[in-house]
Amino acid sequence: MTPLPAAIIRRIAEIRDDNTHGAMSLTSRAGEIFHDWAVGMPHLSHADTVAQLTTLATSLCHAQPMMAPLVHLSSKLLAASDRCTSSAEIAQTVMTLSRQFVEQLHARLDAVAVNAAEVIPDRGMVLTHSSSSTVLEALIQASERGKHFRVFCTESRPMREGVALARRLNAAGIPATLLVDSAAYTVLSTVQMILVGGDAVTPDGLVNKIGTYGLAIAARDQTKSFYALCDSTKFLPASYPLPNQPEHDPREVLTTPMPGISVMNYYFDRTPLELLSGIITEEGILSVSQVKERLSSIQIHSQLLSRS
Amino acid sequence: MTPLPAAIIRRIAEIRDDNTHGAMSLTSRAGEIFHDWAVGMPHLSHADTVAQLTTLATSLCHAQPMMAPLVHLSSKLLAASDRCTSSAEIAQTVMTLSRQFVEQLHARLDAVAVNAAEVIPDRGMVLTHSSSSTVLEALIQASERGKHFRVFCTESRPMREGVALARRLNAAGIPATLLVDSAAYTVLSTVQMILVGGDAVTPDGLVNKIGTYGLAIAARDQTKSFYALCDSTKFLPASYPLPNQPEHDPREVLTTPMPGISVMNYYFDRTPLELLSGIITEEGILSVSQVKERLSSIQIHSQLLSRS
Repeated sequence: MTPLPAAIIRRIAEIRDDNTHGAMSLTSRAGEIFHDWAVGMPHLSHADTVAQLTTLATSLCHAQPMMAPLVHLSSKLLAASDRCTSSAEIAQTVMTLSRQFVEQLHARLDAVAVNAAEVIPDRGMVLTHSSSSTVLEALIQASERGKHFRVFCTESRPMREGVALARRLNAAGIPATLLVDSAAYTVLSTVQMILVGGDAVTPDGLVNKIGTYGLAIAARDQTKSFYALCDSTKFLPASYPLPNQPEHDPREVLTTPMPGISVMNYYFDRTPLELLSGIITEEGILSVSQVKERLSSIQIHSQLLSRS
Repeated sequence: MTPLPAAIIRRIAEIRDDNTHGAMSLTSRAGEIFHDWAVGMPHLSHADTVAQLTTLATSLCHAQPMMAPLVHLSSKLLAASDRCTSSAEIAQTVMTLSRQFVEQLHARLDAVAVNAAEVIPDRGMVLTHSSSSTVLEALIQASERGKHFRVFCTESRPMREGVALARRLNAAGIPATLLVDSAAYTVLSTVQMILVGGDAVTPDGLVNKIGTYGLAIAARDQTKSFYALCDSTKFLPASYPLPNQPEHDPREVLTTPMPGISVMNYYFDRTPLELLSGIITEEGILSVSQVKERLSSIQIHSQLLSRS
């Protein structure tokens, strides 16, 4: 097979090394990579084109293995290319569908935010963990509709993206209080609702920033509503087993390494779906059993199901 | 009343501002302050001596309002001084009993560590939160008796005292893994036991580093043993209501303050006793009902019960 262009490989590596942006941002960039690959594709045989697209799709999925929309984008492009009869047709299809997917993703996330804004309590308190752009958008929507509330933001170690979320909420005129992750349990009794984003929704649970699992257990203990805001491109079926998550740079936890002290630095945990009050999607709030039904009907392209 | 000497007032302030040392260290220093007050006490009337001792005792209790051994030390000295008939006798009593209390506290903590070492699993994994010198001593005792185990240490934001604990464990030849606080929920399924210290044990719960409460809920959910290591001077009855805890410097959470973003920075939470497997004391493991029985029989000197 003709190898992927060096510029494309470099951009995949940039996505792999990005530990601050969320699904919307990274999926947009992945869409651009697919698009630019199709635009700049040299004259390749049909077989070579399919092989390159497959490599590109699997590489992007592996670059951020927990980010479900990348899987759906890749799956959609591979399935469409299966129906193409020439490399030129594949290129045109990839250009069109990659743009369309990202546009639709924007629209889906807006719809999730609108649906979530409905359930955000007026004159209440909301707790969130990590920094989800969909949660931010939902909070802004609720505020613009005249609801008043305070948001407790965990700092979210190790990368502390909760600080930036608090700043964005403040810029949008929404009162925000920042706390260390462990303090979330102390404020739980005072909030009406916990809202989080999600990287993937699987039959084994919601994949989201590490710490979500503990909060969900405590939320159930205190009978607090706990919603994940996830559009349907976050949903992954049992047939697509998530790989082991990568372990990140130990210096994010311990700036100066110490001989003999090991560091564990994972970004994600998996919260059993049964701990959630529901998942707020572009179609509205889905119950856990509705989520499971959806998950069982999703098809992912077979080329993405085998792990290399 | 003749005011307390300036040097004594300064040393009380140092205890108030100390946010890194534990109960053993701060109670030792409080014992020295009582002792040095008694040694350096000018010729005062009996009434003035009692008044100064009462002020000193209440000031020390308020300096670290969650630290139960300070209450017991103060209570013991006030009760003994009630039986004295002269200021000279009070001075002598305070000198003797303050030293004795600290010596006994050392012996108590050693006994707690020995009792806890018994239950630490061989060839297992232990999770701890924050940095308790009693937990450290128990782990060292277990290691010295030939048990092999790994300790997961949460960094314990905001002050990250878990880093120093990991270093001390490593220096003692005990394998230690450091993790962000939120990751404790991920390793919970792999550990046999959670061990924490405690600042106070009250009928309303175990007062310990913020985050203990969330861990205890999750530990119950996963049916993991969760022990607090607390000698009996940590026990406080319902008649001694703990004051509201102080809020600490917001810059410990957010180094550079941002206008409009509030910060919540409490160090402690309260874990309902029912979430504990038991409390390991100098007398052995007490069940929750045994702890409650003990709590109901403790007397604290009346001068310490009224809040100024």
